[in-house]
Amino acid sequence: MGMEPRSVTEASLQTNNNRVAVIGASGYGGLQSLRLLQEHPYFEVTYLGGYRTVGSNWNQLCPFLPLDNDLTINNTDPQKIAENADYVILSLPNGNACKLVPELLSRGLKVIDLSADFRYNSLDQWKQVYSEEAISVDRKDDQLCRDAIYGLPEWKYDEIANANLIASPGCFPTASLLPLLPFLHQGLIEFEGLIIDAKTGTSGGGRDPKEKFLLSEASESITPYGVIGHRHTSEIEQLASQAAGSSIQIQFTPHLLPMVRGLHSTVYAKLRDPGLTAEDCTTVLTAIYRNKPMIRVLPVGTYPATKWARHTNMAYISVQVDTRTSCLILMCSIDNLIKGQAGQAIQSLNIMAGLNQIEGLPLTNFYP
Amino acid sequence: MGMEPRSVTEASLQTNNNRVAVIGASGYGGLQSLRLLQEHPYFEVTYLGGYRTVGSNWNQLCPFLPLDNDLTINNTDPQKIAENADYVILSLPNGNACKLVPELLSRGLKVIDLSADFRYNSLDQWKQVYSEEAISVDRKDDQLCRDAIYGLPEWKYDEIANANLIASPGCFPTASLLPLLPFLHQGLIEFEGLIIDAKTGTSGGGRDPKEKFLLSEASESITPYGVIGHRHTSEIEQLASQAAGSSIQIQFTPHLLPMVRGLHSTVYAKLRDPGLTAEDCTTVLTAIYRNKPMIRVLPVGTYPATKWARHTNMAYISVQVDTRTSCLILMCSIDNLIKGQAGQAIQSLNIMAGLNQIEGLPLTNFYP
Amino acid sequence: MGMEPRSVTEASLQTNNNRVAVIGASGYGGLQSLRLLQEHPYFEVTYLGGYRTVGSNWNQLCPFLPLDNDLTINNTDPQKIAENADYVILSLPNGNACKLVPELLSRGLKVIDLSADFRYNSLDQWKQVYSEEAISVDRKDDQLCRDAIYGLPEWKYDEIANANLIASPGCFPTASLLPLLPFLHQGLIEFEGLIIDAKTGTSGGGRDPKEKFLLSEASESITPYGVIGHRHTSEIEQLASQAAGSSIQIQFTPHLLPMVRGLHSTVYAKLRDPGLTAEDCTTVLTAIYRNKPMIRVLPVGTYPATKWARHTNMAYISVQVDTRTSCLILMCSIDNLIKGQAGQAIQSLNIMAGLNQIEGLPLTNFYP
Amino acid sequence: MGMEPRSVTEASLQTNNNRVAVIGASGYGGLQSLRLLQEHPYFEVTYLGGYRTVGSNWNQLCPFLPLDNDLTINNTDPQKIAENADYVILSLPNGNACKLVPELLSRGLKVIDLSADFRYNSLDQWKQVYSEEAISVDRKDDQLCRDAIYGLPEWKYDEIANANLIASPGCFPTASLLPLLPFLHQGLIEFEGLIIDAKTGTSGGGRDPKEKFLLSEASESITPYGVIGHRHTSEIEQLASQAAGSSIQIQFTPHLLPMVRGLHSTVYAKLRDPGLTAEDCTTVLTAIYRNKPMIRVLPVGTYPATKWARHTNMAYISVQVDTRTSCLILMCSIDNLIKGQAGQAIQSLNIMAGLNQIEGLPLTNFYP
Repeated sequence: MGMEPRSVTEASLQTNNNRVAVIGASGYGGLQSLRLLQEHPYFEVTYLGGYRTVGSNWNQLCPFLPLDNDLTINNTDPQKIAENADYVILSLPNGNACKLVPELLSRGLKVIDLSADFRYNSLDQWKQVYSEEAISVDRKDDQLCRDAIYGLPEWKYDEIANANLIASPGCFPTASLLPLLPFLHQGLIEFEGLIIDAKTGTSGGGRDPKEKFLLSEASESITPYGVIGHRHTSEIEQLASQAAGSSIQIQFTPHLLPMVRGLHSTVYAKLRDPGLTAEDCTTVLTAIYRNKPMIRVLPVGTYPATKWARHTNMAYISVQVDTRTSCLILMCSIDNLIKGQAGQAIQSLNIMAGLNQIEGLPLTNFYP
Repeated sequence: MGMEPRSVTEASLQTNNNRVAVIGASGYGGLQSLRLLQEHPYFEVTYLGGYRTVGSNWNQLCPFLPLDNDLTINNTDPQKIAENADYVILSLPNGNACKLVPELLSRGLKVIDLSADFRYNSLDQWKQVYSEEAISVDRKDDQLCRDAIYGLPEWKYDEIANANLIASPGCFPTASLLPLLPFLHQGLIEFEGLIIDAKTGTSGGGRDPKEKFLLSEASESITPYGVIGHRHTSEIEQLASQAAGSSIQIQFTPHLLPMVRGLHSTVYAKLRDPGLTAEDCTTVLTAIYRNKPMIRVLPVGTYPATKWARHTNMAYISVQVDTRTSCLILMCSIDNLIKGQAGQAIQSLNIMAGLNQIEGLPLTNFYP
Repeated sequence: MGMEPRSVTEASLQTNNNRVAVIGASGYGGLQSLRLLQEHPYFEVTYLGGYRTVGSNWNQLCPFLPLDNDLTINNTDPQKIAENADYVILSLPNGNACKLVPELLSRGLKVIDLSADFRYNSLDQWKQVYSEEAISVDRKDDQLCRDAIYGLPEWKYDEIANANLIASPGCFPTASLLPLLPFLHQGLIEFEGLIIDAKTGTSGGGRDPKEKFLLSEASESITPYGVIGHRHTSEIEQLASQAAGSSIQIQFTPHLLPMVRGLHSTVYAKLRDPGLTAEDCTTVLTAIYRNKPMIRVLPVGTYPATKWARHTNMAYISVQVDTRTSCLILMCSIDNLIKGQAGQAIQSLNIMAGLNQIEGLPLTNFYP
Repeated sequence: MGMEPRSVTEASLQTNNNRVAVIGASGYGGLQSLRLLQEHPYFEVTYLGGYRTVGSNWNQLCPFLPLDNDLTINNTDPQKIAENADYVILSLPNGNACKLVPELLSRGLKVIDLSADFRYNSLDQWKQVYSEEAISVDRKDDQLCRDAIYGLPEWKYDEIANANLIASPGCFPTASLLPLLPFLHQGLIEFEGLIIDAKTGTSGGGRDPKEKFLLSEASESITPYGVIGHRHTSEIEQLASQAAGSSIQIQFTPHLLPMVRGLHSTVYAKLRDPGLTAEDCTTVLTAIYRNKPMIRVLPVGTYPATKWARHTNMAYISVQVDTRTSCLILMCSIDNLIKGQAGQAIQSLNIMAGLNQIEGLPLTNFYP
């Protein structure tokens, strides 16, 4: 994986390349990015950009997350951003980042986009999956879609290191792909009949108030949603197909749970070799993820809880095998706003800046 | 399905056969049975039996659920029970009901057991699945195991009407079998590759305090447990095999959710006829469950939330089909302590007493 | 308290006066009214009125609360309402009921208003407390304000029986006044230094989505709000002053809790007679509330939990005395949407119709 | 306040005095201490001691909180502890620390006790308040009780710096005293009629399973407990009396809330000078707490939520004044396991070691 990462001290000496702009700061993705960067040993938040809150003073707007250098929220003018930052994290609704990215890149900024705008290699596929958003924006940036790097650091480290534009993965794809890709890549499972049953907390629905995410509605309940056709299906399939070297179709069903954070995916697949045991499959994972500091593979029989991953950038993975049915069961727990969103983005940011990828990222939850 | 049910008025005139004993009243199954019977238009709770709380006054023990005829908790002497009751609901830990049932039946009582003691036709299978409990009790009641009726009213109505001993189903089997049996019975799905991904609230773990069910531990978290080998797997398989007329193996994975009540199962199966649509499959369910007042089949695209079923004896079922993959997705939401336990038991009790099966059972949740 | 209540059977024979219109049905107050009336043995919902949802089919809009006589949501035309109903429950935002009430009363309808529009005897006070709402409506209905009856059945039974317009109390005033009024009325406590520290679930904030009521924001947190100057302060003071026969000022502080339902008030007062014990004070309450079926006074040392009152129309009250400080501590738990809103309204409706006040109202929670 | 704190670098150079033993590590206080020390830049956990779990491997016991130097849990032998550590954090049930402390001190260790054993200057008072615990232990350590320092760093900084034995405060006293002491100390409020209405999450009840802390029981509910006579009353009164220079009696009522962490106290007092405004009182606090990095005084009208303090060592305080009644309302939110327990203990540890008091302590929550 190329060069050794620089230490924060080295990095600070060599360049002055640590200014980060966060655009869309008051949503959960933005808040979480700010919170992590606030304690980062290298990066500094030097620009906040938004729409509805332009002109507001951050510390008054969010007294629960005061910034040391109490900033005023600015607009999204690319020129201003370029004057004040080296990197940009975009935390905007789908269909908005694509309007800003070309101008940001042309001014030499490196961009990490938390939305889905650049997650597909094919602009046509984006237009099909995000058809509603596609109506209100006239995109012609096919080349950018092809150039953007899917920011899953455990599988795209070198590409991220050299990228100018990162499409940070969705929360469901992250928790689904991390356990699944090794088995697809090594051809250990059937390519048909893959099932992902996923469960998420309400913060995945964002901070903009909607009835279904009210505590009164969402608590003391579980419900499936987006059954067949959830947008993350195609995102998972794109990466799964790349790993398998073959076109993969996946059954993906998300469920909304009565909790704030946490995302758990349970993946079902059929083993090609019925003789493989849970121990064998655990060895497959530990071998592949040996040097990946953000992945913790659990011993057979220990199953992850999202509480373990909460407020950290870790993914906890466990494997089980039913020898009666040759069914492989993969379980993965992450924090949807950190490893599933802002934390993974900063992991990419670290790699882009030549730092150790874990720099500034929380590894330990506050139990309970 | 035989005779018309009697009205409560008719029933009251004809006999005086409405006295119910609840044994194990202070656990959640017992509490829930009491609460439902307290408002039942026909039955009356005339005996409370227990172990640790013998001699206590009920209304002092449970000021949150005062009984009109404030009872004292008695022991579990079969003779005393027989003198005071016509029906017995047993809400005891596994391996305990089997010690009482023969003596209760021999005294002419009709028994509904909430535990797993009589859920298997084969005593040997019980001994294998409940091996720990089997150590401390020397069971030889093979015949009782064969005679006991599995109390799933939508599929065993006539048998229940004539039964002396009901083994009331587990919560996971109820929510899994209700959507699945129609498709197995009609041979519409492949018998291999069946997957049930189930989610339950903490009350399924009972009232006896255990660390994993503390609010501090269970809230803000989801975790799988009993992955491969959960005891309800074999219970589901027994009924599924009967319906299919063929031996069925199922992949069953339960998850613990941060909520009190509610159980949701998501069932994945492969359609034999790839041309079947979600509408076709919904029609299959509505036809089979047309006259079943406790089942509500939802229109295509409306997915159930456990909140809808909470505090009711209803099962909400929805079907979806992914035509890309020929995958059938069944979703079922129930209240684990009512339709999944005490409510379903009283539904059986109603049928045994010749009443309308819905008598005294709540049909409408308190939203939100 | 005048006439004996009629039985439901008598009532049905004598008149045909059981049709109820619910205006504003899809908010939590409306939903809860519908749910209770749906199972009421006498009343029938014959009209649903609203604004945004006019023309919608109820059972499609709310599949979780299907009505037997699946209604279409109508507008709020008083003439239409009068043709279809005998009673009207208004569940509208503050400042809206007052626009409809005169026309409804003039057509002979009896009205129960869940809002604050008629809770003050003085229109001027309403204009002062609800100053924002007062801007957009030009009220001149002083006389109606004086005539309206504050629908707290334990203290206003006879007035309710003869009323045409009921102003149903707020949730905080209900849980605060029920324990407090007896002590004010009997002059047992100092009139100064009264403190009410109240705690409510999120459903009190309504179904209209607001950021602070999102599960992500409200769960795992408690916060005070409306500290000094909350609108319910003046409502409590009006009733407290009536009971005391003297002008009373109260310190009222509400807190938002991470739960859906439930409202608990802890009231602190100074005993005039330092010799009074907790037992004495409990006797005061049991004497006053002896024949009030919706109040349960707990024995000394048993403290109410809102879970006990949840989904019921009961108020659980407990008293404690600190003999060191002569401080009287009153604790009251209710369900904010039932005894604190829709249930209490139907309790008034029962009284207006000459029925037993508990008719159709839930008395027992579903524990846990 | 004496010497400048040392930087971590200075400290590391000067001595090798950074080894910490945690006794009682698997309870919530112990877990939280470990979690904080694990990321502390100076201290290192070198010894884990316990009772029931002796011989267990930590990382297997708690896979959700793996330690870098994966320790085995040892017994509580003072000699062994002394050989392996410089400081000891005792996180044991009340009545246990006092058995170990003399032997630990005599071996030159510095001790921080999270229990109540040394929180009273008077052993007699401890025996009276903790009468149950006093039965099973024959304490004669009056002198130690007088020597121990109450570890509230904002008020006892210098004493802590020179202490050998710290009695770390209870969670309720912390959140009550921090807002209250300034007003008592400056004589701005009446000394009579003080009321503290406090609210806590379930983690305050510990990790040992008890029925009332089950999610099924505690969620969707609030209930008062320990009304008059809660043990923390006397602890608060001791410190309040010291600050006031006069004997103070307090009305203290705790409530159990449906959340894991967070403790909020609402304090009511009568202002001596009726002319004081909320702004004046806020100025009093900001002046006193100007250089206290763990206290954040909020602007008038901004009220703290426990979510803001969660997972941090901060106390958020807000003041309001009702000029009608001259009532002062103080509001304080903390994390009960951090500022209310383990974090405050480490704050004391920092001070004892001559470090900056905030070293290694989290200041920013993970919102939401």
